[in-house]
Amino acid sequence: MLPVTLEDVRAAREVIASVLHRTPLLTSHALGSQLDRPVYLKAELFQKTGSFKPRGVLNRLKKLTPAERERGVVTFSAGNHAQALAWAASAAGISATVVMPTTAAAGKIAAARGYGAEVMLHAKFAEGAQQLSQERGLTLVHPFDDPGIIAGAGTVGLEILEDLPDVATVVVAIGGGGLISGIVVAIRSQRPDVRIIGVEPIGADSMARSIVAGRSVRLDHLDTLADGLAAPFAGDHTYAVVRDLVDEVITIPDEEILAGMRFLFERCKLVAEPAGAAATAALLTGRVRLGSGPVVSLVSGGNIDVERFKSLL
Amino acid sequence: MLPVTLEDVRAAREVIASVLHRTPLLTSHALGSQLDRPVYLKAELFQKTGSFKPRGVLNRLKKLTPAERERGVVTFSAGNHAQALAWAASAAGISATVVMPTTAAAGKIAAARGYGAEVMLHAKFAEGAQQLSQERGLTLVHPFDDPGIIAGAGTVGLEILEDLPDVATVVVAIGGGGLISGIVVAIRSQRPDVRIIGVEPIGADSMARSIVAGRSVRLDHLDTLADGLAAPFAGDHTYAVVRDLVDEVITIPDEEILAGMRFLFERCKLVAEPAGAAATAALLTGRVRLGSGPVVSLVSGGNIDVERFKSLL
Repeated sequence: MLPVTLEDVRAAREVIASVLHRTPLLTSHALGSQLDRPVYLKAELFQKTGSFKPRGVLNRLKKLTPAERERGVVTFSAGNHAQALAWAASAAGISATVVMPTTAAAGKIAAARGYGAEVMLHAKFAEGAQQLSQERGLTLVHPFDDPGIIAGAGTVGLEILEDLPDVATVVVAIGGGGLISGIVVAIRSQRPDVRIIGVEPIGADSMARSIVAGRSVRLDHLDTLADGLAAPFAGDHTYAVVRDLVDEVITIPDEEILAGMRFLFERCKLVAEPAGAAATAALLTGRVRLGSGPVVSLVSGGNIDVERFKSLL
Repeated sequence: MLPVTLEDVRAAREVIASVLHRTPLLTSHALGSQLDRPVYLKAELFQKTGSFKPRGVLNRLKKLTPAERERGVVTFSAGNHAQALAWAASAAGISATVVMPTTAAAGKIAAARGYGAEVMLHAKFAEGAQQLSQERGLTLVHPFDDPGIIAGAGTVGLEILEDLPDVATVVVAIGGGGLISGIVVAIRSQRPDVRIIGVEPIGADSMARSIVAGRSVRLDHLDTLADGLAAPFAGDHTYAVVRDLVDEVITIPDEEILAGMRFLFERCKLVAEPAGAAATAALLTGRVRLGSGPVVSLVSGGNIDVERFKSLL
C-alpha cells in the first residue's frame, strides 16, 4: 500500500489551485538540440516563495485541527520548505517555528524570518525540531516524509500530464524525496509507461543508498553545495514510493550541478539554485538513459542571491 | 503618416508565428506588491536567440527579393540584432555580415559567429556597415529604423493585448526605438487609452534628446553599461512614431538598471541583460507615473554570460 494515491493528489490540487501558481512548462531548444528530442523545463522556480515547496505545505496545513492551528507548527529545513511554511502559516494566521542548520544560506534564513517565522539554528536541525515539537506541543510539518506534503507536491505531476500528454521521461532531483514521490504517484497511475528518473548529489545520496540497503538509511555526513538536496535521510514514505515506482536514481557530482546552473543561466535565462539545476545537469551530462519522446526536467527552485551565485560560479 | 500600421504588424505575425516563440507573460508578485497593482513581465528573454530581435529580422528578411537574398545582408549591432540576423539568415541560407563595435561583449560576438555570420569589428560600426553595403552590394538590414523591423517587433504588442486585454500601462526600454515603435502601433490603434512609456539610459538618451530637439539627433558619445540600448542615434521612423504616440520617455542611470537586474535575478528568477532590465528598473524606482490598472514591463533580452554578470553586479 502506497502512502499517497492519485485521489490524494487530486484533492490537494483543490486545496492549492486558487492560491498558488500553475507554473509554466517552458520549451528548452538549447537542451532539446543537445538531446535531440523535445525538452521542457517545469518552472517551479516561478512558484510562490521561489520553489515547489508551498504545494505540499498548503495541503498539509489544511489538515490541521483547530487545536493544532492554535498551538502552531514547527519544521526543520535548510531553506525552501522553511520559507514555504513561514509564508503559508503566516497567511493562515498560524505561528511557525523553523529550525535551520547552522550552515543554512543567509538569504534563506532572512527570507524565512521575512515571511514571519521564528527561526532557530541548530547543528542537528531535524532533532531540534522534534524536540521543540514535544516541548511546546507544536505540530511538526515534515519537509518531505508526510502524505499531505507528498500529495501536494504531486500536483506538479498533474500539471505536466495536462500540458504535455505525450511526455515520455520526467527527471526530478531528490532531497528527501517528497517531490519525486508525489510526481510519480500522479503520473504513473495515469501513464504507466512514463519513465521517472531521480537525481541525487553524490554527497547527499541517502535515497540511492536506501535503495541499495533495502531500507531507509541515514547519512552521517553530508557534502554537497546543493543545500536544497541535503536531506540527511530518506523518508519512510518517500523511500517506499521511490523504491516501488521510480525507474532509476542517478547520483551526480557537485561540479556537474554547477555546470547545470550555468547552462540554465546562459542558455535558458533562468536563475536556478543548485538543487533546482540538478535534474537538468544530469540530462546535460548524458547520465539519464532516455527512451524516445519528450523529456521534462524539473527546475524545482531558484532561491539563490547574487552573492551566493557569484561565489559558486 | 506613420511608417507602420496595425495591418503591417498583423502581417508580420503571419510571417513569424510558426518559427518564433509566443513568449509568456509572467506574473510578478514581487513587483506587483511593490507597485500595489498587478504587474506582468513580457518574457522576451525566452525568445529565440535570447531577445525580441528575431521578430523584426524574420519579417524583414521575408521582404528581400531573390537577387537580394543571393547577394546577402549586412547589419551593424552591439549584439542582439547581430545574433538574430545571423541566426535567421543562416536558417534561410542567406549569407550575413555583421559589423559590431570594438567594445561589443565577447559572448555576443561569439554567438553571432556561432550562428554562422561573418563578424567584423569597427569603431564606427554603423558607418562600417553602410560602407560594406555599398562596396559589396549587400542589403543593409537596419537594427531598428526600418518599417519591416518595426512591424515585426510590434507582434509583441499583439501578444500583450491578447494575454492581458485590460492592460493599462506598458513600459519598454529604448535603444534605437524599434521595439517601442512596433508595440505602440500595435496597441494604440486598438486601445488608445493604454499608456506606453519609454526608458533610456542617461548615457545613451538619443530618443529623449531627439524629442527635445524636435528632430532625430545623433550622440557623439555613449556612456552606458546597457550595451543593448547603446544606439548612437534615434531612427527617423522610430523618432516619428515615438514623438507622435509614446506618452513619455524617461531616462535612468546605469546604477538603477543594475539594481533592476538584481531584482529580476533574486525575486523573479530571470536572467536579464542590462537592456532587458531597464524597463523594470524604471518601475522599481518609482520613475514611471502609473494610472490605475495592470502594468506590463518588457524584459527584452537575456544575453549575458556568467562572467559579465559577475563583473556587473
